[in-house]
Amino acid sequence: MQVIQHVAEMQAVAELLRARGKRIGVVPTMGYLHEGHLSLVRLARSHCDTVIATLFVNPTQFGPTEDFERYPRDLDRDLKLAAEAGADTLFCPDTKEMYPDGSATFVDVEGVSAVLEGKFRPTHFRGVTTVVAKILNTTKPHLAVFGQKDAQQAFLVTKMARELNFDVQILVGPTVREQDGLALSSRNVYLSADERLRATALFRALKHAEMLIARGERSAAHIRSQMLALLADAAPAKIDYVAFVRPASFQETELLEPPSVLIALAVWFGSTRLIDNMTIPIS
Amino acid sequence: MQVIQHVAEMQAVAELLRARGKRIGVVPTMGYLHEGHLSLVRLARSHCDTVIATLFVNPTQFGPTEDFERYPRDLDRDLKLAAEAGADTLFCPDTKEMYPDGSATFVDVEGVSAVLEGKFRPTHFRGVTTVVAKILNTTKPHLAVFGQKDAQQAFLVTKMARELNFDVQILVGPTVREQDGLALSSRNVYLSADERLRATALFRALKHAEMLIARGERSAAHIRSQMLALLADAAPAKIDYVAFVRPASFQETELLEPPSVLIALAVWFGSTRLIDNMTIPIS
Repeated sequence: MQVIQHVAEMQAVAELLRARGKRIGVVPTMGYLHEGHLSLVRLARSHCDTVIATLFVNPTQFGPTEDFERYPRDLDRDLKLAAEAGADTLFCPDTKEMYPDGSATFVDVEGVSAVLEGKFRPTHFRGVTTVVAKILNTTKPHLAVFGQKDAQQAFLVTKMARELNFDVQILVGPTVREQDGLALSSRNVYLSADERLRATALFRALKHAEMLIARGERSAAHIRSQMLALLADAAPAKIDYVAFVRPASFQETELLEPPSVLIALAVWFGSTRLIDNMTIPIS
Repeated sequence: MQVIQHVAEMQAVAELLRARGKRIGVVPTMGYLHEGHLSLVRLARSHCDTVIATLFVNPTQFGPTEDFERYPRDLDRDLKLAAEAGADTLFCPDTKEMYPDGSATFVDVEGVSAVLEGKFRPTHFRGVTTVVAKILNTTKPHLAVFGQKDAQQAFLVTKMARELNFDVQILVGPTVREQDGLALSSRNVYLSADERLRATALFRALKHAEMLIARGERSAAHIRSQMLALLADAAPAKIDYVAFVRPASFQETELLEPPSVLIALAVWFGSTRLIDNMTIPIS
């Protein structure tokens, strides 16, 4: 696997691949790869001639009190895993390469960037859409793949790419879970053994909602109160939100209407903030 | 000349040109072409295999009280002039094509977008950098050409393209002037015959500053007061600013230091707002 650290070199390599008629897939990540990331690399692989995985812990998507410094990093392990999953190139720039001194350009998607995650992490999505724009211009992909685990991110990145006329297809890969339902996340390593057990409450709450909806329940308030009770049993440090969202617009709604609802939640165990979501069909 | 109105078609044409190894130059304009625009088309032509002129009166760079509605338009004349100057393709989308309903993505360069022009036109540069990002992603150029007449725009577009990692070279072409020094602008058609005569005061004020600096004057305050007196003689409706700027950072300065200073001004005659600037070497 080719490892590239500089923007200009990555652009030259991407340009050469395009000139040779190769279809390029890119999988942007912050590294510390797990099976969720690797499933996205495989998904890109199945649609493209060549796959670039990018690895960059992006400072602009962390708030001042968040975990940028302690975010887990293991480049050697990531190199091995990305190659095994089928990545041909790893682009891993440092911070100065992606944000030279004096950088002041930001890409913002107004509206949806300010709700749910954006309410609790005010500059988070501006950082995400900015770095994704940079990555798209650096890797020049035909296809870019993101995970459904970060549902709001996937929505905003797709909207940003379409509205800035990036000539790229965005594909969203399904969430990968542990046996007990916990969504894979690089941040799961922060959890103590006890927190790790209790953290399964997120998935159980989502499955409970799915069961209620299958039985005909259509009141978001009623479903939410049962989810909150179920989460409370797991003694979380804090619940940021349990939200019902229209998948097409990412607008919150209390009305469960066809064709589907996305239920998203953010819950703290100890000092670790976990998110999860599920899209549930409404008949 | 090929005329294209849709983003997807323009992207497909640009992609084909790149696949054939053609070097693409783009000249973004708001139409109503004059010799200033045409000199940029010729400049692009001299550096590239093929030139795309874009023509789009961009609503997001106009303030709510500005001249978006009355901005002059003449597509037939523009087609002829662009072709004569050497453009191979004219990209002229309508507003819905560039800003589909619900568009909410903006590209902003913080800092320099808020001074000088940005102080008097608060959302102007956000509109400019957003539409230029869209145009770059649509026309996929190797080179993009802008005019020095809009000095702050040229600075911000260059900074935006570099910081978002657009793989494009930006070239800035010199201001083209009438015989009497008035900088060419599509907005000059708004001027009455009398205003048109008085509007030469902008250039005369800049030439006067150049003469003072050549004689050794280094006080911005002193130069500005003489420029303001000279402008006042032409009875303008209003003077928005006469500013001294470091070309490398576009920061205002009262100290005239080597290697050069950019003097920029914005002056109203009747209901028409004119801008001009000159970069003057400091020995």
